[in-house]
Amino acid sequence: MAKISSPTETEWCIESLIAVFQKYAGKDGYNCSLSKTEFLSFMNTELAAFTKNHKDPSVLDRMKKLDVNSDGQLDIPEFLNLIGGLAVACHDSFLKKAEVGRSLDSRSQRLQ
Amino acid sequence: MAKISSPTETEWCIESLIAVFQKYAGKDGYNCSLSKTEFLSFMNTELAAFTKNHKDPSVLDRMKKLDVNSDGQLDIPEFLNLIGGLAVACHDSFLKKAEVGRSLDSRSQRLQ
Repeated sequence: MAKISSPTETEWCIESLIAVFQKYAGKDGYNCSLSKTEFLSFMNTELAAFTKNHKDPSVLDRMKKLDVNSDGQLDIPEFLNLIGGLAVACHDSFLKKAEVGRSLDSRSQRLQ
Repeated sequence: MAKISSPTETEWCIESLIAVFQKYAGKDGYNCSLSKTEFLSFMNTELAAFTKNHKDPSVLDRMKKLDVNSDGQLDIPEFLNLIGGLAVACHDSFLKKAEVGRSLDSRSQRLQ
């Protein structure tokens, strides 16, 4: 029998993001994109902490910016642009915090 | 004490992708991008099943295409473009399989 290995962390993330997209895109009946209602439901459930901290632009203004082909829906490449954008912003924020931490460490060492 | 809620699936994916990127980007010393060696290590470990099934283009040719600013390294937006591209390809493949499944079901119903 062929051995089925468990997915790596990256494969697991890819599968999960597709599953999350399909879950919300399927709320108003079967299709392959997020309507405004489905996008609001996704943002308020999956990214509530983020939307609470970033009130500007509003969730629907954000959707307009992501909707590259302006069809009033978000398809999976447009949805993944949002995820990629958030990941880059989080990564940059981690780097800034690490930089501040290193700077404080170095200052504290000089003062000792 | 403030209540810390557990991350949603989407938040977990974003955190995991950043952690995977930082893990491989840190292999040749601390920096914020993947060198060729680090990218090869990432692809052969995290996406081995994918690279085994898609021999063309080669892994380093793929890196050249992803390296938008041609600095010989992949930064996090370039890395996330790869993940997004793979997720779109997987999603399209799922849809095609589902379409074939529905078509076979409908054919089988007509034959009954």
